[in-house]
Amino acid sequence: MKMDLSPARGTRDLLPATVAVRDHVLARITEVYHRYGYQRIETPALENIERLTGGQGGENEKLIFKILRRGLAEIPENLDDLVDLGLRFDLTVPLTRFYGNNHAQLPVPFRSFQFGPVWRAERPQKGRYRQFVQCDIDLIGEESVLAEIELIEATTEALAAAGLPGVTVRLSDRRFLSALAESAGVAPEAQGGFFITLDKLDKIGWDGVRKELLGRGFTEDQVDGVQQAISTAQGLDPAKLADQLTDALPALPEDVAADLAATTGALAAIGDLAWEFDPTLVRGMGYYTGQIFELSHPGSASSVAGGGRYDQLIGRSLGKDVPACGFSIGFERIVDLLDNAPKNDALAVLHESDVPTAEVLAVARELRAGGRQVTTIRRRGKFGAQLGRLQEWGYTSFVHVKPGDITEVRPLAVRETS
Amino acid sequence: MKMDLSPARGTRDLLPATVAVRDHVLARITEVYHRYGYQRIETPALENIERLTGGQGGENEKLIFKILRRGLAEIPENLDDLVDLGLRFDLTVPLTRFYGNNHAQLPVPFRSFQFGPVWRAERPQKGRYRQFVQCDIDLIGEESVLAEIELIEATTEALAAAGLPGVTVRLSDRRFLSALAESAGVAPEAQGGFFITLDKLDKIGWDGVRKELLGRGFTEDQVDGVQQAISTAQGLDPAKLADQLTDALPALPEDVAADLAATTGALAAIGDLAWEFDPTLVRGMGYYTGQIFELSHPGSASSVAGGGRYDQLIGRSLGKDVPACGFSIGFERIVDLLDNAPKNDALAVLHESDVPTAEVLAVARELRAGGRQVTTIRRRGKFGAQLGRLQEWGYTSFVHVKPGDITEVRPLAVRETS
Repeated sequence: MKMDLSPARGTRDLLPATVAVRDHVLARITEVYHRYGYQRIETPALENIERLTGGQGGENEKLIFKILRRGLAEIPENLDDLVDLGLRFDLTVPLTRFYGNNHAQLPVPFRSFQFGPVWRAERPQKGRYRQFVQCDIDLIGEESVLAEIELIEATTEALAAAGLPGVTVRLSDRRFLSALAESAGVAPEAQGGFFITLDKLDKIGWDGVRKELLGRGFTEDQVDGVQQAISTAQGLDPAKLADQLTDALPALPEDVAADLAATTGALAAIGDLAWEFDPTLVRGMGYYTGQIFELSHPGSASSVAGGGRYDQLIGRSLGKDVPACGFSIGFERIVDLLDNAPKNDALAVLHESDVPTAEVLAVARELRAGGRQVTTIRRRGKFGAQLGRLQEWGYTSFVHVKPGDITEVRPLAVRETS
Repeated sequence: MKMDLSPARGTRDLLPATVAVRDHVLARITEVYHRYGYQRIETPALENIERLTGGQGGENEKLIFKILRRGLAEIPENLDDLVDLGLRFDLTVPLTRFYGNNHAQLPVPFRSFQFGPVWRAERPQKGRYRQFVQCDIDLIGEESVLAEIELIEATTEALAAAGLPGVTVRLSDRRFLSALAESAGVAPEAQGGFFITLDKLDKIGWDGVRKELLGRGFTEDQVDGVQQAISTAQGLDPAKLADQLTDALPALPEDVAADLAATTGALAAIGDLAWEFDPTLVRGMGYYTGQIFELSHPGSASSVAGGGRYDQLIGRSLGKDVPACGFSIGFERIVDLLDNAPKNDALAVLHESDVPTAEVLAVARELRAGGRQVTTIRRRGKFGAQLGRLQEWGYTSFVHVKPGDITEVRPLAVRETS
């Protein structure tokens, strides 16, 4: 019986060449984060459904894969009673639970590194999958911008090590955005909605943003005021940013200006790091409370990493606020930019069927002792054609084992017939 | 609001020290399997529910975490209509689907390495979790015992590299068991049930096995016959196993004896490998068709790895049989045996709060350039107590950064007060 052998809708099988690229990128990132003292943790893929639907995940909560309760004898009247667990849709919700559950055993501050699959029941489309990998670092317990700067430095270094140098840091601060909106007459309680629209600026431009904001009941004066302030901020001298921003926006709190000065000063001191203040940067999640940042790369239309400070998120479950800041690498995006597999120096032990197995394996064992990758492969079909296939499969050299005779190691670059 | 912060029932959070051991073990295993030419693949955690309930998974099919269909407007009449996906309960069911779906793009034979979580809704108990990691290698497309021998050699080498030398290979063959049962008068169609009971021999002994078999309708003669034949097989000379087995059990097919001779001969030729023929070895899964094997270790009551040949499993979904043989390491079991974390040479940059952030980070950057792990940590509380905590957290040395003054790197072994 032949069955449907496709993976479940919106998911995919990863073949060896793809996995090799992903493993290579992950190893380089891990190496750098490890040198900065970030320690990998793991949380289960499953979380209690109440935790996943607590409001922390925004729109993602609509995309949860829900798990049917075990041992249901009959169908309950209420759909909600069907479900007790769900698959995580990000690594931040599990991290805040993990920190709350385990903080007594963790260092202060705690540097967390997470890497793992998350699941979202999105409509499948090209390049977007229902299971994908997230790669996050978070610094929990550090109240100063040391956290922001270190996360930015470590992540740009990690991306460069993975083969993606040349990123640009874009930086802003949620508190700057609030001050700016307030100066333009947008009340604090209306700012959330205002920024959701402003976040679309790179996609729909100022005309689109204006139209949507007016449609949502904001006034011409408010939109003009914000646009004007952003335009002013865009023209400031990066080296004197904090001072000039304070002059241009008197409502900007002193500590926000001081933090910006500290971060931009420190970024400027990191060699070879391109950065800019981007007053249009919003970032989607509602939980950010301070500086926010993204990394852009010329090869990608959208950002390749993003993060920010979220000082009040852990408090929602722990009961007391703990300062925290995080940075997430768009892992799937960067492996797409980096689809060059690492070179493999694989050797094939091509053996005729009438050579005793123990002999074939002894040849392989001896060659493998040198540390290289050695694979036994049975001779089949035409010799030249088989050598061609070996090359396609990534082998670079071979030996030919016949009864009582073993050739030297020969390169596969030149096809031979023997 | 303080919420319940525990992971979902039967699952667990993995803390940094635990993850470090697991990553270390996995890296060593990966290195060895890679040298043997095994290539890592990945399949999604989710599979269509029809595939998971096709009978291939035996008892595990009762333990599936099932995913609620998305977009259900109302509750369907039939419980089965609620569900379209499930979480995989092993890596073999996904592998056979993967091979069927992708074989045109894979080398022949294909050496697969898989490592990843699986989920089973078992009653939680000490040391058994609802999410756990499996670690499998499979050789697909090799019909001879070269596959069996290579899998055994690679896996014993991988375990030794991971820090678990001294395993013993126990070997048998499903076809030997069939011949033995048939000689004792157990009909082929009754053998499945017979062996399910025989598989409990190490737990309930011959008395228990006898009682259960008689209760299931087998005769005294049948049980005596099998016990007698097994006892004879246990006493054979390992070096002349195949010949003596053929003498003792005339019903043993010639090719089975030849395969046993080839495997035992090759195992004997591998230096430092302990192995034995174990006629009581059954292994649970119904899909095995030839040689089966397990690895025992003095530190573990149950086996630390197991596998065998399954030549007809891929055919069930592909429509044509493909020879295959696999070996699975009990990853959770071996990390429990190996809970010694790799040594970390971590350095703490202990900085007073009034040192500018950019300066602190510059110190860390310079120390990190040498390749070692360097972490910035703010000075808090009593100096000696903080040094004590640094030691607990795994740091081996530190520098103390005060305004305008940085100490030398000092070891943390001797506590200081300064």
